[in-house]
Amino acid sequence: MIFNIPDSPLPRVVIIGAGFAGLNLARKLSKSNFQIVLLDKNNYHQFQPLFYQVAMAGLEPSSIAFPIRKIFQNKKNVFIRLTEVEEIDASQNEIITSLGRLKYDHLVISIGAKTNFFGNKKLEEKCLSMKSVSEALFLRNLILADYEKAISTTDYEKRQGLIDIVIVGGGPTGVEVAGALAEMKKYIIPKEYKELDFKEIDIYLVQGADCLLKGMSPKASEGAEKFLTKMGVKVIKSMRVTDFDGEYVHLADGSLIQAKKVIWAAGITGNRLKGLPDETLTYGKRLKVNRYNQVDGFSNIYAIGDIAYMEEEAYPKGHPQVAQVAIQQGKLLAKNLKSENANQPMKEFFYNDLGAMATIGRNRAVVDLPRFKFTGFFAWIVWLVVHLFSLIGVKNKLFVFINWVWNYFTYDQSLRLIIKPKIKKEFETDEVDENRKEKREQ
Amino acid sequence: MIFNIPDSPLPRVVIIGAGFAGLNLARKLSKSNFQIVLLDKNNYHQFQPLFYQVAMAGLEPSSIAFPIRKIFQNKKNVFIRLTEVEEIDASQNEIITSLGRLKYDHLVISIGAKTNFFGNKKLEEKCLSMKSVSEALFLRNLILADYEKAISTTDYEKRQGLIDIVIVGGGPTGVEVAGALAEMKKYIIPKEYKELDFKEIDIYLVQGADCLLKGMSPKASEGAEKFLTKMGVKVIKSMRVTDFDGEYVHLADGSLIQAKKVIWAAGITGNRLKGLPDETLTYGKRLKVNRYNQVDGFSNIYAIGDIAYMEEEAYPKGHPQVAQVAIQQGKLLAKNLKSENANQPMKEFFYNDLGAMATIGRNRAVVDLPRFKFTGFFAWIVWLVVHLFSLIGVKNKLFVFINWVWNYFTYDQSLRLIIKPKIKKEFETDEVDENRKEKREQ
Repeated sequence: MIFNIPDSPLPRVVIIGAGFAGLNLARKLSKSNFQIVLLDKNNYHQFQPLFYQVAMAGLEPSSIAFPIRKIFQNKKNVFIRLTEVEEIDASQNEIITSLGRLKYDHLVISIGAKTNFFGNKKLEEKCLSMKSVSEALFLRNLILADYEKAISTTDYEKRQGLIDIVIVGGGPTGVEVAGALAEMKKYIIPKEYKELDFKEIDIYLVQGADCLLKGMSPKASEGAEKFLTKMGVKVIKSMRVTDFDGEYVHLADGSLIQAKKVIWAAGITGNRLKGLPDETLTYGKRLKVNRYNQVDGFSNIYAIGDIAYMEEEAYPKGHPQVAQVAIQQGKLLAKNLKSENANQPMKEFFYNDLGAMATIGRNRAVVDLPRFKFTGFFAWIVWLVVHLFSLIGVKNKLFVFINWVWNYFTYDQSLRLIIKPKIKKEFETDEVDENRKEKREQ
Repeated sequence: MIFNIPDSPLPRVVIIGAGFAGLNLARKLSKSNFQIVLLDKNNYHQFQPLFYQVAMAGLEPSSIAFPIRKIFQNKKNVFIRLTEVEEIDASQNEIITSLGRLKYDHLVISIGAKTNFFGNKKLEEKCLSMKSVSEALFLRNLILADYEKAISTTDYEKRQGLIDIVIVGGGPTGVEVAGALAEMKKYIIPKEYKELDFKEIDIYLVQGADCLLKGMSPKASEGAEKFLTKMGVKVIKSMRVTDFDGEYVHLADGSLIQAKKVIWAAGITGNRLKGLPDETLTYGKRLKVNRYNQVDGFSNIYAIGDIAYMEEEAYPKGHPQVAQVAIQQGKLLAKNLKSENANQPMKEFFYNDLGAMATIGRNRAVVDLPRFKFTGFFAWIVWLVVHLFSLIGVKNKLFVFINWVWNYFTYDQSLRLIIKPKIKKEFETDEVDENRKEKREQ
């Protein structure tokens, strides 16, 4: 298998990763005079902010994942390949992938970040993360399967392990998951799992810092904690998780919590890509870039989004790793590449902070706008509207909207299905692995 | 893990399988004075007639699968367990499952049928079937992944293997899949896989009998063949598939078709359950029942749906294995159990044939009503309406309806996502296997 991309007189921009940064760049460039090669491991773009709703059976994966090919239908100069990039050979202006080598004129790294287990292999093995639709689906299946098992488990202690859940990390993901679990406990369990005593279900949220939603306003932090506590979530602040053996979570003060499911949402670290000099790596394994998103020491290699580390006057320690930064960097880089092509000067990046928000449950959210911070019902409406309009595709917007309205009035998400594609061993469906296998055999 | 079902003064009806037959029985009984134990391998009921649309990326699994617990919300006497029944111990009125033994007063077997490979292990290993949502999802992922691979495959022969598809069996499933694939080839490939020459894609439909849709009217058979041929499907009649080695399909006349994907839809055979005497098994591995659906030789063991074989005046060779028979038998059995409980006589089953239909593509279907047979646009509308109203749940109806309207006007199904839940090896998610494992360890 080879890349099979036609030669073209147009400069070739190779984009690695179709997240918010890479996708926005590709969309903006697709109408210009570039040959664009967009690479991703998946054939879809994922809308990260709603992963937790997939995990909580509130939305279908297809509502928040969008096929990349569909976005670039009929775009003659855009070539999409499902592959994983193994290495950059900057001396040759080439990338090395499972599909072989490919020349680039401009290389854009938008590979994002992954869950940070701080080097603890045991936590990495035993904990659940939620950095992809696939992981969210797995978590959903696991939660539902464990409720089923709990019904048939008479031993109290064993049952606790199956139904209690510990969430590590009190950022937006942790807060949103905790809120959604608390609602499932309240509205769904008594109706559908009547053999379970829903009062036995404990949801723990363990946060290292002394407040939730660190980085948002005190109003938001306090609001989130108040809402969650009211909903029965056990919020533990200023506490680190030191270990998890699959049965018990060990806290820094020596106490234990029994739970088989630990959701790890305690931070992210940059994805790795071989071939760039070590000096380009900085805090959080991010790539150091200048104000034009050029990677330190290179003029035709760029990094944008979560993987990029840029210092700006207002952000001397780099930007927050959020969707807005990625989107804005992707869009500016498109402009800058066009400018460069036209021998025009490039523009420096300035982050326009539109605010931050998190939802905790029905009618409850916290919103920090640059000049106005508020919590409660109105914040919740703002959260819904912003997320709805950020989704790609009219049909996705419509389906998510109907789902939300439905869930709101029925108090009931109806997607509690434990569905896994049946794997037939005769078939190798993972094209990435397949390529690797072929390569090894060569 | 144990069954954990409370003792009750009510007679206990144990239902194995929540397909059309078992589910309709359970719903009708749930308001009466029975304790109902409903067992299934999955936590959802699946709407078989639309599996092919899931496989063709036209519908999401959640639109045609419905969580069983949701159907019986707040029903105090209904107990749902995810388990596989291993054996019936009729002498003790007990079933043996991965959750242990369970006593029954009435036992209802509604375990349906599975794909029939006529004992050919190689075909079973290498071919794809479509008898569950999981299999349909797997097929979807495989088709899409193979298109991706084909783009990077320059060798003509190898590429043929990836993009050509052979469907074996010209019944409704085969016809509907062939039609849907032909539409994908025509409307989607040129827009999204521009590197592929869509004219290279061949879709073969191999039928053993001398006409498609055997069992329907000649008008329907001819209509289906005319439509499919017009859409470019290569229909091969009066031909058996003798072998498939993973690369080539061997036909009875010695000719070969190169294809890596063979969809096997050439018949079904009853699922097996140990513990019943051999004499109860008859044609197609179905269980012989009398007109009250009592299994031959038993007064408190019943079989309904695809697994049941009943001879009726109008059906001397048994009923067709279709949803309508299952639904009608489930409903009648509910009445009969109530009658028996009230010391009233039971009623004999008479099948009320409402007709048969199959859809071939946009605006194209064939419908046989008892007194009226027609094909084309009106048939297609009838097909849509009947299937829409047969779905469980208002939201499912709504979502399927929107999807269909959307696809109709955009010529574009937008669910072409290769999503698989990420499996974490540390976790054993398959509760059935888990139980088995525990059992072995005991």
